Order: sequence, then structure tokens, then C-alpha cells
Amino acid sequence: MQPQSIIVEMPSWIADEMARRPSLYPELDARVQLVIEFSRLNVEHDTGGPFAAAVFEEESGRLVSIGVNRVVPTSVSSAHAEFTALALAQQKLGTFDLGGPGMPAHQLVVNWRPCTMCFGAVIWSGVRSLALAGSGVAVEEVTGFDEGPMFDNWIEELNARGIEVLDNLDREGALKVFRYFRDSAKIVYNARKG
Amino acid sequence: MQPQSIIVEMPSWIADEMARRPSLYPELDARVQLVIEFSRLNVEHDTGGPFAAAVFEEESGRLVSIGVNRVVPTSVSSAHAEFTALALAQQKLGTFDLGGPGMPAHQLVVNWRPCTMCFGAVIWSGVRSLALAGSGVAVEEVTGFDEGPMFDNWIEELNARGIEVLDNLDREGALKVFRYFRDSAKIVYNARKG
Repeated sequence: MQPQSIIVEMPSWIADEMARRPSLYPELDARVQLVIEFSRLNVEHDTGGPFAAAVFEEESGRLVSIGVNRVVPTSVSSAHAEFTALALAQQKLGTFDLGGPGMPAHQLVVNWRPCTMCFGAVIWSGVRSLALAGSGVAVEEVTGFDEGPMFDNWIEELNARGIEVLDNLDREGALKVFRYFRDSAKIVYNARKG
Repeated sequence: MQPQSIIVEMPSWIADEMARRPSLYPELDARVQLVIEFSRLNVEHDTGGPFAAAVFEEESGRLVSIGVNRVVPTSVSSAHAEFTALALAQQKLGTFDLGGPGMPAHQLVVNWRPCTMCFGAVIWSGVRSLALAGSGVAVEEVTGFDEGPMFDNWIEELNARGIEVLDNLDREGALKVFRYFRDSAKIVYNARKG
């Protein structure tokens, strides 16, 4: 017998933190600071890895969803922050396509460049914009996480599919959380090392 | 407000079909035929795209989980068959790492080569073997699905992470289902076309 459903639960602090914050983020920097702060909160609460992502309506800045890494607590190796934020937005809006007809353009904001898997997840999601605090091997050097093979031309591949990429919006802010995570000595869960 | 959890439900026919089948598949060909059959059943029942995947204990052939594509019915663009099969196995076994200490080696069997996203998902899952009915652009030519950019050296990338790849185990059998899907004119849900 296998489970009837896959269930990926968000930690309870997310709803509390969202309730006491604005629902509109017109400025891009405020969107980036929100995901960096949630990446830190996920480490502080010991509810997953140091990653957070959020879906916004690109123009208005309305926050649609925010997700954090939930790999270890939910026993799902794909429960990266990009996956959780995108799926929460899609289930909230009732569509697998965040770029569907009649919808406002959506932007995914992440505290670091997506790994190989999440790079693909971004393409399938329907978002029109990907905004990143930073990218590159620094995350692997600091945390020990493996991000998998990555296309040298990843930005062009996204652009070719109608997704703009904004990078290096706050590298140092993101790296501070990765260092905090490293120093708190949490589990680094790359399955392939198992 | 966003949902507290992401829920990806399997169609009810899966449990029925599993109940009347063996739980052991010592022969690789029987594993491949099982996923091809489930890919067809998913189209027949109109419960998702023409893709199925299953996790087996590699040596004994014990079936751990079987998942199908659930993108449209669950409004989750990442709910590809590889994702669902891997997450079902991981939540059933209570671990994000199917290659963890003391566990038997696990094999993922799929009715076609994983897309970009699922290529990454396989790496993070902890499986030691990936067995495919077929690979290449034929699926895109027949169904219109975009599989995303793919590494030319995808097999070497998986091998380098301790995952063996067995390909072309039944191309024609898999393609038959893709043609059946095409001829039944189901939705092709690539978000980027939206």
C-alpha cells in the first residue's frame, strides 16, 4: 500500500509571519528582502533548509504565495522552496499555469538561483519573471549543498521561454543566511551522499 | 491567505489496479510494462498526462510506489510522474533519501526520459538506477510536449552521481501510448504556451 496523496505541509509560523506583514510589495527590493528573511526564519525555526521563494503579481507586487524548503520535515526530496512556492500559488489560484489567459504576469523571487530541478520547475510554472538575490557556486561553497549540473546559458534558456531573469539583487544578504545555516550545523541532505 | 499544505492526490483507480497485481517484479521488462500500462490507464481514465513512473527495490523487484502525471487535475505544474512516484515512495518509507544507510538500492522506472525538472528530481531522490522505456525527441514530436533543455551528457551526469541508466527498454510500447494520447486530443499543458 502506498499513500493516496502526497502532502507537503508548510510550517505553522508562515501563516503568522504573513499575517503581520503587508500583502503588497511594489518595490522589487522589498520582495527580495522578504524571501531572504523567510530563508533565515526557516533555519531559526529548524523547519527546513535555508531557502525561501515567493510568487508575486509582477506589476502590483501582490504577494500570492511564499514557500520554504521542506525536504527533511516532509520526507520529499523535491520539496525545495521554488517547488513549494509555485505549487502553493497554483493550488491557491486553481490553475497549473501562472501565465494562463487573462491572468496578471507572475514573478518568482528566490534567495538563490534554482538548482537543476527547480530550473525546470520554473519553466513549467508559467511565471514570466525570475528574480534572484544571487547565483553561482557560493551557495555550494558555504553550505555544502550540491545544486546539480547547470546550463551555462541558463539565462538564455529562460529568456527563450518568455521568462526574464533579474540576478544579484542582494548576494550578500542571501550569503549571510547561508553562513548562519552553516554555523548552526544543520543537516545537509543531498541524497546522493547517502 | 495561502493553503497550509500542497496536496497532490493520486487517482482512485491506482489503488484498485495495484491491488489486483503482483507486488514483486523480479524481471526488468515486467517493471517497464507496468509503467507503460499505467501511462495508458492515466489517459483512459482522463486523470492526467500519458506518463507513469514507479519505484522498485532494485534487487528484489518489490514495488514501492507508482505515480502518474497529475499536472492538470491537481493544478501543480511539477506533478510529473517522476515527482509523484518518488514522493510517494519517500513519504511511504518516511525518508527523503531512497539511498540512505541501511536501505536496499532503489530503481526508478519511467515510460520516457525525464524532462529537465525531473532529471534534477532523480538526482536528489537517492535512487541508484533509472530505467527508461525510451528517450529523445520522439515524445515531443508525437505529443507536442516540451521536455525543456537537456544536457547532451545527461547519462554521464547521472552516472557521476552513482545512478546507472538503462534506456530503450521498450520505445515502441511507450510511443504507442503517446500516439493514443495524441489521437484522443487531450490538453497539452505546457505552461509556457499559455
